[in-house]
Amino acid sequence: MFSLTVVDHIMVAHSFRGAEFGPAQRLHGATFVVEAEFRAPKLDDLHLLIDIGLAKDELRKILSALDYRNLDEEPVFAGKNTTTEYLCLHIHGLLAAACQDGRMGPGGAGVTGIKVLLRESHVAWAAFEGPVG
Amino acid sequence: MFSLTVVDHIMVAHSFRGAEFGPAQRLHGATFVVEAEFRAPKLDDLHLLIDIGLAKDELRKILSALDYRNLDEEPVFAGKNTTTEYLCLHIHGLLAAACQDGRMGPGGAGVTGIKVLLRESHVAWAAFEGPVG
Amino acid sequence: MFSLTVVDHIMVAHSFRGAEFGPAQRLHGATFVVEAEFRAPKLDDLHLLIDIGLAKDELRKILSALDYRNLDEEPVFAGKNTTTEYLCLHIHGLLAAACQDGRMGPGGAGVTGIKVLLRESHVAWAAFEGPVG
Amino acid sequence: MFSLTVVDHIMVAHSFRGAEFGPAQRLHGATFVVEAEFRAPKLDDLHLLIDIGLAKDELRKILSALDYRNLDEEPVFAGKNTTTEYLCLHIHGLLAAACQDGRMGPGGAGVTGIKVLLRESHVAWAAFEGPVG
Amino acid sequence: MFSLTVVDHIMVAHSFRGAEFGPAQRLHGATFVVEAEFRAPKLDDLHLLIDIGLAKDELRKILSALDYRNLDEEPVFAGKNTTTEYLCLHIHGLLAAACQDGRMGPGGAGVTGIKVLLRESHVAWAAFEGPVG
Amino acid sequence: MFSLTVVDHIMVAHSFRGAEFGPAQRLHGATFVVEAEFRAPKLDDLHLLIDIGLAKDELRKILSALDYRNLDEEPVFAGKNTTTEYLCLHIHGLLAAACQDGRMGPGGAGVTGIKVLLRESHVAWAAFEGPVG
Repeated sequence: MFSLTVVDHIMVAHSFRGAEFGPAQRLHGATFVVEAEFRAPKLDDLHLLIDIGLAKDELRKILSALDYRNLDEEPVFAGKNTTTEYLCLHIHGLLAAACQDGRMGPGGAGVTGIKVLLRESHVAWAAFEGPVG
Repeated sequence: MFSLTVVDHIMVAHSFRGAEFGPAQRLHGATFVVEAEFRAPKLDDLHLLIDIGLAKDELRKILSALDYRNLDEEPVFAGKNTTTEYLCLHIHGLLAAACQDGRMGPGGAGVTGIKVLLRESHVAWAAFEGPVG
Repeated sequence: MFSLTVVDHIMVAHSFRGAEFGPAQRLHGATFVVEAEFRAPKLDDLHLLIDIGLAKDELRKILSALDYRNLDEEPVFAGKNTTTEYLCLHIHGLLAAACQDGRMGPGGAGVTGIKVLLRESHVAWAAFEGPVG
Repeated sequence: MFSLTVVDHIMVAHSFRGAEFGPAQRLHGATFVVEAEFRAPKLDDLHLLIDIGLAKDELRKILSALDYRNLDEEPVFAGKNTTTEYLCLHIHGLLAAACQDGRMGPGGAGVTGIKVLLRESHVAWAAFEGPVG
Repeated sequence: MFSLTVVDHIMVAHSFRGAEFGPAQRLHGATFVVEAEFRAPKLDDLHLLIDIGLAKDELRKILSALDYRNLDEEPVFAGKNTTTEYLCLHIHGLLAAACQDGRMGPGGAGVTGIKVLLRESHVAWAAFEGPVG
Repeated sequence: MFSLTVVDHIMVAHSFRGAEFGPAQRLHGATFVVEAEFRAPKLDDLHLLIDIGLAKDELRKILSALDYRNLDEEPVFAGKNTTTEYLCLHIHGLLAAACQDGRMGPGGAGVTGIKVLLRESHVAWAAFEGPVG
C-alpha cells in the first residue's frame, strides 16, 4: 500500500459542553496541524499516487472554511462538540468527497483510504482513518 | 477507526545480556518518549474517544513505576532484556488492563486496540500494537 | 553562558484589532507551545542552573492564568492585541519576577536572562529575550 | 505486532517527465529522510525484533547507491520517474531482499512486513508498506 | 529583543568543487527548510514586529528564484559553491534588502537583525545572522 | 556570524547527589541528542565554515567516551554531578580543544565560538555557549 501525506494547519476557537471537559468548557482555541494521508494500492504511469498540488489546494480549501473562526458559531457544527477526534472525521469526509467527485484529478479516483491526523500540541493528537467510496 | 494519542517520557538505566548488544551490554540509559495511541471504532455522545485527562494520568501512573530507575533491579524484569520493543509490550499490557478494569472511564471500555511507541532517540524507535480484550 | 529550557503549552482564543490582521480579526485560537529558556553565567555546586522542577511548576502557574481562556476577556490584556510577540513579552515579565522574588529558588537569583519562545504552528513562532533584574 | 524503525537520509538530484509536475520538471533535488520500519509478530529470546546495528548498516548500504547522485543518470531508474512514492517502493524491495537472504541476521527471517517512509520536507512525505516474502 | 520566525522550503540540485567535498562533488540535491528570523527591539502599536503575511510572501518570492532549480546553472552563483552556509548569507542579503526598501511594510523598517537558518537534514543545518542596514 | 550545526546522540546512565534531585538521585539514564554548533565570522574560499565530515567524526570520537556508559563510574566525572548543563560544558571544552589543535582542519582554526545543546527529552534541554581560544 502506498501513501502520500500533505500538511497544513488551522487556528480556531471553540468550547466544549460537558463537565468531563473541565476548563476546556471555557471558550479557548487551538492550532491544529493537519496531516492528510492518501492511500492507494498502486501508482499511475507517472509514478504518482495523487497530484500533490491538487491535494494541497483541496486540503487548503476545506480548511479555509474552518480557519480563523469560532467553531461554536459555525452552523455545520451546531449542537456538536468539535473535539479533535470529531474534526478528523469531519475533514476526512470532505477529503473523501473531493477524491470521489474528481476535484483531486485522476489520482483521486484511485484513493482507497484516507487518514486525517490533527496535532493539537506536541503532546496530544487524534486521527480518523477510513475507506473512500 | 479513530485514535487518540498522548505523550509522556521516562528516563531509565539498564543493560543488556547477549553479545549481540555490543557496547549496550554495559550499564547505560535512555530517555524514552512514550506515545500511547488508543483506538476505537466510534466516539461517545460528547465526541470523545476516551477522557484525555484520565489517559494522561493513567499513563503517568504506569510510567512512574519505571521512571528514574535502573530496570536491571526491578523484579518485574528479572531475567529479561528490557529492549525498546519489550518495554512497548510491557506498557501495552498495563494500558490495556487500565482500559478493561475501568480506570480509563467509560471511554476505556470502547477501546479496541492500543499502540505503544517508544522513541529512544531521533533516529530509532520501536512499537507494539495489539487488541484490547 | 549556560541555559536551561523547559517546555509547556497553552490553548487560547483571541481576536485582533486592525485591518492588517485580515481574517485574524475574527475570533479564533491557537495552541502556543511555550519554550522558557533561563540563562546564567555559572552553575551552582550541584551543577544546576536552576531547579528544573521549580521552573516547570512556576511556568505552569503562570500559564494557567492564560490556558483554556478567551484572552479578549482577560482584564490584563484590555485594549491590547495579544499577538504571539506580545505574549512572549508578557510571560517573560512574569518569569523574570518569579526569579527575582525567590519563587525559583536560589538558582533563580543567578538567572541573568530569559528567552520566551512561543510556537504558534510548525511554520511560525515568535520570541522575546531580555535581561532579568 | 511489533515494529522497529531506524532513520537515515539521502541527498539526491532528479527531474520529472510529465506536464503534471510543473516546475519539478526542471532538474532539482531533495533531502529524503528515510524511515525504515520492520514489523514482526514476535521477538526473539533476547527480546529483539531485529539486530538494530545490522538494520542500520544494511539501510546505509542500500542508500549509498542513491546518495549524492543524480537519479536521472542511474541505469536502475532509466525511463522512470523517481517520485517519493516510487523511491519508497524501490527501497522497500531492497530491504525485503536483505531480510530474506540473511543479511539482516536471524531476526530478518522473522520480519513479515516493512514500511518505508520518505520525508521530502516538513510538510510532505510518502510511504510504501508491504509484506516480506 | 523580539523576534518573529517564518518557515518555508526549497528543493534544489547542485554540486560542489573541491576535493574536500568528497561524494558531494557529484551533482546531488537537497531540501532546505528555511527559517527566517526577523529581530527588532520593539513592537508597533498593534503589537506586531512585522506583518507576517508580507514576511511569508517576500520570503517565498526570494525562494522562488532558487526553488526547483539546478543552482550550478544560476548566473548569480557562477563560480561559487552554494554551500548551506553560503545560501544562508545569500538569502539574508535579499531579506535585508526587502526590509530596507519597504517591501516588508512599516515593520520592516524597524528590523535591526535577521537570522537565516537552513536545515539540510534532521542532523545538519547552518545559519547566518547579521544586522540590517 | 555564520554557524554550522551537526547532531549526534548518546545513551548514558547516571545518578545525582543532592536532595534537590528527588527521584533523580536514583540510578537512571538518558538519551541526550547532542547539537554542536560551530560559529565563525567568515567562510573559507570554498564557502565552508568547517569540514562537516571532520566535525561529525570528532564529535563522535568525543561522545564515544561517554556513550553506553554509567557516568557515575567514569573517573573524569568523579565527585561531580553530570547534569545536562554540566555535560554541555564538558563537551564544549573537548570540541574547543579539537578546533584549536588542528583536528577539525583549517576551518577549525577560524571557529570563534561553540554552542553545545543537549536535549534530554522533548520537553527539556540545556546548553553551554562560549568562545574558543
